[in-house]
Amino acid sequence: MAASYTHQTAGKIVGGPHCTRELAAHLRLFGDIKSALIVTQPSMIRQGIVEELRRQLSAAGIATEIETGIKPEPTVQNVEQVYDRISGQAFDLYIGLGGGSVLDAVKLLSVLATNPASVSEMIGTDLVGQAGIPTVMIPTTSGTGSEVTPNAIVTLPEEQLKIGIVSRHLLPQLVLIDPVLTVGLPQPITASTGMDAFTHALESFISNKANPLSDMFALESIRLISRSIAEAYRDGSSVTARERMLVGSMYGGMALTSAGTAAVHALAYPLGGKFHIPHGVANSMLLPHVMEFNMDAIAEDRLACVAEAMGLQTGGTKAKTADRIVAQIRSWTKELHIPQNLHDYGVTERDVAPLAEAAAKVTRLLNNNPKQVFVQDMQALYHKLLP
Amino acid sequence: MAASYTHQTAGKIVGGPHCTRELAAHLRLFGDIKSALIVTQPSMIRQGIVEELRRQLSAAGIATEIETGIKPEPTVQNVEQVYDRISGQAFDLYIGLGGGSVLDAVKLLSVLATNPASVSEMIGTDLVGQAGIPTVMIPTTSGTGSEVTPNAIVTLPEEQLKIGIVSRHLLPQLVLIDPVLTVGLPQPITASTGMDAFTHALESFISNKANPLSDMFALESIRLISRSIAEAYRDGSSVTARERMLVGSMYGGMALTSAGTAAVHALAYPLGGKFHIPHGVANSMLLPHVMEFNMDAIAEDRLACVAEAMGLQTGGTKAKTADRIVAQIRSWTKELHIPQNLHDYGVTERDVAPLAEAAAKVTRLLNNNPKQVFVQDMQALYHKLLP
Repeated sequence: MAASYTHQTAGKIVGGPHCTRELAAHLRLFGDIKSALIVTQPSMIRQGIVEELRRQLSAAGIATEIETGIKPEPTVQNVEQVYDRISGQAFDLYIGLGGGSVLDAVKLLSVLATNPASVSEMIGTDLVGQAGIPTVMIPTTSGTGSEVTPNAIVTLPEEQLKIGIVSRHLLPQLVLIDPVLTVGLPQPITASTGMDAFTHALESFISNKANPLSDMFALESIRLISRSIAEAYRDGSSVTARERMLVGSMYGGMALTSAGTAAVHALAYPLGGKFHIPHGVANSMLLPHVMEFNMDAIAEDRLACVAEAMGLQTGGTKAKTADRIVAQIRSWTKELHIPQNLHDYGVTERDVAPLAEAAAKVTRLLNNNPKQVFVQDMQALYHKLLP
Repeated sequence: MAASYTHQTAGKIVGGPHCTRELAAHLRLFGDIKSALIVTQPSMIRQGIVEELRRQLSAAGIATEIETGIKPEPTVQNVEQVYDRISGQAFDLYIGLGGGSVLDAVKLLSVLATNPASVSEMIGTDLVGQAGIPTVMIPTTSGTGSEVTPNAIVTLPEEQLKIGIVSRHLLPQLVLIDPVLTVGLPQPITASTGMDAFTHALESFISNKANPLSDMFALESIRLISRSIAEAYRDGSSVTARERMLVGSMYGGMALTSAGTAAVHALAYPLGGKFHIPHGVANSMLLPHVMEFNMDAIAEDRLACVAEAMGLQTGGTKAKTADRIVAQIRSWTKELHIPQNLHDYGVTERDVAPLAEAAAKVTRLLNNNPKQVFVQDMQALYHKLLP
């Protein structure tokens, strides 16, 4: 446990089915808003969600433009190109409507508009000088929790790396948590983003920086996701299951902001940077293996808390509890058809050594892991995904 | 459950034993701070806590002034007098170090400095026009949760009423949750403020406006306080128990911001307004009686959640669960020597009718109560405290 700990989150969070319809009413928060840029992805336009938002904002006297140029797992160049395109127009507000890639990019667009720095100059912690254009985040996946974190992740293609920008100026002013928007998520996305959210919660709970604040968010996230991930996968139209997943992933974001993630994330980043494996997929592939590796280093009482939050049988030896937790994660991996073969993404045995070397550099996250992870451990973990 | 729900809290929360020592480091949040007003109470000066803060801020180049003019359960006039006295000086920051009265007053001083309105003109919801001077809140009791709420409560002596000002502009920018500061709390204050915090959590959980966000904070608050209130009372020097109480009371504040409090608070306000009974004492006196009254209107599954969070035996009929909860609250009332006689505060049988009439006007809170409370019910409840 850390001696002192912090909690920071979005300015205002509004939740509930169809709460997106209240967007214009909540925009009174920001004073006089005349124009907004909606950054989103094509699937949101196809589903009619963007049109509904535009009508609502237009009725409130707010002109909107739409931007769909942010790519999945965006590179620094992609974000800066989009910025160059929109920078001629002065928007009062940026609205992010999408998954973690869109939300992270909106955070960066917001501060690019008010700071003389480039994205590369902001990489690291607390290197954003000024507050950005106010942002509204409307997540459409239950995964990253990006809507409530001060983090943005970008890819540096020349270094084949994914890297983080962390600043309180990236925290949004308003978040809408509307489970109805996630009802249409395809099964593979429900699976990988859901297991990603679970990873955030579990890694935060076992993190060396875990603390009373992060523990509450982490355990409630584990509870909500454990209760609902299989149902959300089987029956995507269950708004109850979708709401639990969305609130759970948001709590995962709150937990990781305070406690940090650990080895799963450190091992996942090179898979994203080098092989363009989506973040949620990389995390969910690695989760059962890294957790099995970690189990003996986690305190018995904390393992019991995890098992209880997962709805598993408690009691018995520590090894028994650990086995039950790993077995449940493995069972989800099967039931949700989480990929377990890196060959499918073009990874070969020859890539293992450089992947492990790259992961070993993510010391910011490895320092949070309850068990020291040596380079040979990382190689062994990647090998498990090359059957 | 409400259809849509909101969560808003302080900008940044820092917790942990001795975290107050990090105040100056966290003030970088605010840019260039040259002067701060510390609003506090004499006991904090006597304990040397104020001197320690001043030394720390002085070393960081921040000049400080001390203000101790805020009275317990302050009136509008008291707050405005203090404001008149300090308004000649331009402070970059207001620091509240104390219990709920001090913290609420600092919120008002902050917005008085930037708004042309008087306190009376801000009474109600969302009637504060402009953001105030940035504030830092350092609670020294585990009770009100004021450090994370957008509320300030003041007394209107001419109307013998306590009334609320609610605005997002009252939310502080920084909160320090340092359990070491609460180690010296006398037993009666530990008891009444602790039961007040428990009341916030329980009333939020059974509120008609309860929602997935408020539920998490409420249950965790109930869990932490139930585990530690008796220990904090018996052994005030236990930093672990004090930390659970302080984090628990903060979560109570987060829960009530989202879900609102209910009949206990409605009945308590006239006791404060007319008889100057401290808020925590009034709430803790009323809690067992109002909860007994409410029990049959609370859904069985929610009662079970409360019992489980309180660490009580679960299972059996709903009536059995209700009995166990009320019995535990009664047992704390005895063990912590919570006053149970309004005669001691000058209340007589003749006051019951006007008290109930005043409480019936607090419709903002009564509307949250799971069971309708008629004037004759309120009279009966006050009578229970006039044995």
